Amino acid sequence: MADKHAGTPRTARAATAHFQVQIYYEDTDHSGVVYHANYLKYFERARESLIGTDKLVRMWEEEGFGFSVYRVEMGFFDGATFGDRLDIRTTVEQEGKYRLLFHQEAWRPGGKKPAVTALIEMVCVDRHRRLRPIPSLSLD
Amino acid sequence: MADKHAGTPRTARAATAHFQVQIYYEDTDHSGVVYHANYLKYFERARESLIGTDKLVRMWEEEGFGFSVYRVEMGFFDGATFGDRLDIRTTVEQEGKYRLLFHQEAWRPGGKKPAVTALIEMVCVDRHRRLRPIPSLSLD
Amino acid sequence: MADKHAGTPRTARAATAHFQVQIYYEDTDHSGVVYHANYLKYFERARESLIGTDKLVRMWEEEGFGFSVYRVEMGFFDGATFGDRLDIRTTVEQEGKYRLLFHQEAWRPGGKKPAVTALIEMVCVDRHRRLRPIPSLSLD
Amino acid sequence: MADKHAGTPRTARAATAHFQVQIYYEDTDHSGVVYHANYLKYFERARESLIGTDKLVRMWEEEGFGFSVYRVEMGFFDGATFGDRLDIRTTVEQEGKYRLLFHQEAWRPGGKKPAVTALIEMVCVDRHRRLRPIPSLSLD
Repeated sequence: MADKHAGTPRTARAATAHFQVQIYYEDTDHSGVVYHANYLKYFERARESLIGTDKLVRMWEEEGFGFSVYRVEMGFFDGATFGDRLDIRTTVEQEGKYRLLFHQEAWRPGGKKPAVTALIEMVCVDRHRRLRPIPSLSLD
Repeated sequence: MADKHAGTPRTARAATAHFQVQIYYEDTDHSGVVYHANYLKYFERARESLIGTDKLVRMWEEEGFGFSVYRVEMGFFDGATFGDRLDIRTTVEQEGKYRLLFHQEAWRPGGKKPAVTALIEMVCVDRHRRLRPIPSLSLD
Repeated sequence: MADKHAGTPRTARAATAHFQVQIYYEDTDHSGVVYHANYLKYFERARESLIGTDKLVRMWEEEGFGFSVYRVEMGFFDGATFGDRLDIRTTVEQEGKYRLLFHQEAWRPGGKKPAVTALIEMVCVDRHRRLRPIPSLSLD
Repeated sequence: MADKHAGTPRTARAATAHFQVQIYYEDTDHSGVVYHANYLKYFERARESLIGTDKLVRMWEEEGFGFSVYRVEMGFFDGATFGDRLDIRTTVEQEGKYRLLFHQEAWRPGGKKPAVTALIEMVCVDRHRRLRPIPSLSLD
């Protein structure tokens, strides 16, 4: 994460943020493990916790813009089960003026490697879904 | 459903409407059956299909109001499983100027009795969640 | 909650248990408030937290039974919005040998009355969905 | 899709399969468009419809194996709204003995390009989540 965007307002967090997700009945499917789409929810909860829900509410209500998922890459290596408490690990870096890259992982208790990994690219859009620059967020 | 509200614009449908719901992985939980909260989704899909999605979109976007669930009673008697095609059966009657009562049931294929039953009371609210009279809907 | 079932093993908790639920994007719908079916999820999370997830996992995996929702009554009085932190309040009493009654409420921050109320009747079933007596749970 | 695996039992479908998804309240979030994780649900419904739910149920119950998502790439270009009827377009090719690649797109009514695109890599696992070869499926 060298500072290739010197001069650009930057949003980044080199340190890994941790966020806990408890796995309930609602999260699993009949195969016995967490339904794959739900990890996108956990990753979003972790991002919202990192940015701050109050900040997101104010951005949306007062300034009329919000974050939107633009691109996703995910890998699924292990299935979490009912009762697991997942550790969601997140780092974030800004790419240019318009994009935030979140590197996120879901770890099962006692896991030796992540159960699920994700690279999530986010952009900022106004209420008409027009692109606007990433605001300066203090995440550290 | 005697006409105790003569003179009131009425929304009702004595005949039972049928709506099909296919049960996918996303619908089940690790106990092997459909997660209980999901039946509320199926009942809503059936209501929207009955009223007409186009009508609901127009009401919301042009007139600024929509339907909102006010009260629910549900009974759970059997659990639907992956691959089931549920038959959602719906009748509706208007109660006074402000309330629609939907009687809804979810039937499994070949079922002798409903798997889940519901009485759903709906009201109409504007964008500020203020009550307004039920509009006249032609459902037959 | 008079002791009309003296001699029966009892599961009850007179004191109100509190459980916090953060409202994320995933919880809301396009009308701007929490989608009604999701409150059933929050109430279940609160019940699982009260009983203890480890206990539920052990019951399911080692003894082959779990709790199942049998009947629900809900009232919807206010709509929670993105960023709300709901306080889920729960009391529970056993009715006879086979039924637990959970009285649950969802309170918005600073609310003067509950946003959503529920009476949830639970039973215990084995893997073949056969009824079995409520086990003795120490919830206090 | 040249036949580089001649001799291997193949599962493929060169022709595009179409599957319709109606967008309900449950699908949207408070920003007014479909919640991003839900597209993974629509893509899975389309895959299950293509393979055949009965076949999937029989595989799981009688032979003890099922399909599992291994890797996902998604791009989000437009947001579907309440009332949309999405056209999910799917092609599939087998890669080696162990992997199916689904190319999937969600098209809004009258869209000039896909709203969401996905490449979904699936594997086959048994009840202990051990890899096994992709079975021969007749999808055409």
